[in-house]
Amino acid sequence: MDDDDHRTGATAETTTLADVARAAGVSVATASKALNGRAHVSARSREAVLAAAAALSFTPNPFARALNRASTNTIGMLTSDLDNRFVLPILLGAEDAFGAGSLSVLLADARDSALREQLQLQSLLTRRVDGVLVVGRTTNPRPPMQAKPDVPVVYVYAPSTDEQDLSFEPDNELAGRIAVEHLVAAGRRRIAIVNGEDTYAAARDRLRGAAAAMEDHGLELVGNPGLVFGAWDESWGRQAAGRLLAAHPDVDAVVAGSDHIARGVMDAVRESGRRIPDDVAVVGFDNWDILVEGARPHLTSVDMNLQELGRLAAEALVESIEGRVRRGRIRNPVRLVARGSSGADS
Amino acid sequence: MDDDDHRTGATAETTTLADVARAAGVSVATASKALNGRAHVSARSREAVLAAAAALSFTPNPFARALNRASTNTIGMLTSDLDNRFVLPILLGAEDAFGAGSLSVLLADARDSALREQLQLQSLLTRRVDGVLVVGRTTNPRPPMQAKPDVPVVYVYAPSTDEQDLSFEPDNELAGRIAVEHLVAAGRRRIAIVNGEDTYAAARDRLRGAAAAMEDHGLELVGNPGLVFGAWDESWGRQAAGRLLAAHPDVDAVVAGSDHIARGVMDAVRESGRRIPDDVAVVGFDNWDILVEGARPHLTSVDMNLQELGRLAAEALVESIEGRVRRGRIRNPVRLVARGSSGADS
Repeated sequence: MDDDDHRTGATAETTTLADVARAAGVSVATASKALNGRAHVSARSREAVLAAAAALSFTPNPFARALNRASTNTIGMLTSDLDNRFVLPILLGAEDAFGAGSLSVLLADARDSALREQLQLQSLLTRRVDGVLVVGRTTNPRPPMQAKPDVPVVYVYAPSTDEQDLSFEPDNELAGRIAVEHLVAAGRRRIAIVNGEDTYAAARDRLRGAAAAMEDHGLELVGNPGLVFGAWDESWGRQAAGRLLAAHPDVDAVVAGSDHIARGVMDAVRESGRRIPDDVAVVGFDNWDILVEGARPHLTSVDMNLQELGRLAAEALVESIEGRVRRGRIRNPVRLVARGSSGADS
Repeated sequence: MDDDDHRTGATAETTTLADVARAAGVSVATASKALNGRAHVSARSREAVLAAAAALSFTPNPFARALNRASTNTIGMLTSDLDNRFVLPILLGAEDAFGAGSLSVLLADARDSALREQLQLQSLLTRRVDGVLVVGRTTNPRPPMQAKPDVPVVYVYAPSTDEQDLSFEPDNELAGRIAVEHLVAAGRRRIAIVNGEDTYAAARDRLRGAAAAMEDHGLELVGNPGLVFGAWDESWGRQAAGRLLAAHPDVDAVVAGSDHIARGVMDAVRESGRRIPDDVAVVGFDNWDILVEGARPHLTSVDMNLQELGRLAAEALVESIEGRVRRGRIRNPVRLVARGSSGADS
């Protein structure tokens, strides 16, 4: 019965405990005990199971858990810092996915402290959560959590530095790329970037994508894009765009590191006597309604699909709990929403 | 032992189960059973307890719960709509308060649907939460939740329409008042308001407070403030301020219904050739960092103290669970943060 369930739940890419048991020639229960290090398993069986698990690259933990521990139908959601607007759509997407499966969500926040994060994790484990979703503050890779071996962890927004973990992040390189592709398709050639902070992987990844897209078209970003990292705010956008337009008056488009920066860029473009989008087109990142819709004209922006990201990570966590374990860093697609600032109707 | 604990925990304003037992001349356990409607209590004791409870205005539920049911140390946090930026600081404050008391938080979101809210509440009750914090989407009063009698509910942001419930909301009338007081202290007399949507209690309450403060100084808001309700966005702020300045060119200050509206107002003031704050001072509400710090000059704004609001509501919920039950609508103070748009240094 258990055995059948497992096979039904498995995909072509994943190895189940049933597969391991079959390969080792033992029962699923014995395989589970062997992998869990519990008594009442002969040394011979244990060795056979471990060998089969290794040969099949099987990760025992989630299955062992499902077999040996009653599920609490509770998921831990461990946020790095709730005081961060990127967290909200991710929470929303995750809560959506968990809610649909009648799982409850225990919320814990680390207040951007590694020590507190560890304490919060322990508290979640004490409450016997079935799995933990770790929601980062930035997309910078972060050290893996030290959870229990039988409690799966999935990382979202900030990927784990351990590639054996499963992490979901927005594809920031793609974001930079589609911003440029959109501008080139609109006939722009003298494209510059006004970036966010260089300590953020998001800023570096977007620049890399933008530069690669330019190169694909035989173009180069105007100015030295490595020199225009700055802050994530409007005032930096104004300042950097002012300098950019003075040094390169023929710029016909600016990729801004965020919608917030874009708002500052738009002010500076307008104050230089140029029209948006006629003289200079502007594209931002985040597609933050409150900023894009307040802009004149409305701001074209790359939507990082954060709600979808949260939902996907939550679904993957449920799969992990059910024994279908994936690994690696999954970069989720993003999409550009064209508006007036790059010449679209809006 | 229990008896002592209860007395220690009680404040002068609250009646404890121990008080009821004392007045009825029975043990705390008997009082609890009587109030719970459980067997093994004589009719005479039951009547004495109910009479004492009525005389002392005692609410049996939380105590009965504490005595009769094992605590799960879990709180339900039921949000009306996670996709609402006002929720985040409230969650943060609440999580802070619960976390400090080693309570876990089960998160459930209603997606702005009354039906889903009821389902989520049932799911939280099935998980035997000790209490529920209901976080609204607006400050408009909302119908009370139909929770179990022994599971306390505290409302935050959106108050319950039932004054027997305990609700926490920001003091929006005070917010309107201190915005005007600040401007009058800065020497402004020709003050107008550009408001948000009139379907929002927040917009109406702020207007009421602003008008009352003007009256205290023998002044009147410029124009007909009842006619300047609009939308919560920049474009409404620009449009309304443009019309206002055309009709009343001597306006020397604008109270904007939100920081977002204020940004639009500032654009219109600047484009009319007036200087901020020299000719026209501007004050917003929400003190939303991303908007106030991007403004030129930085925007003076009323901070609604939402994180504190969340913390206070969470603490009150814990008190309710412990049997110290308060009632009514608590309006939490707000504070003005002075910046360049009203002449302060920043």
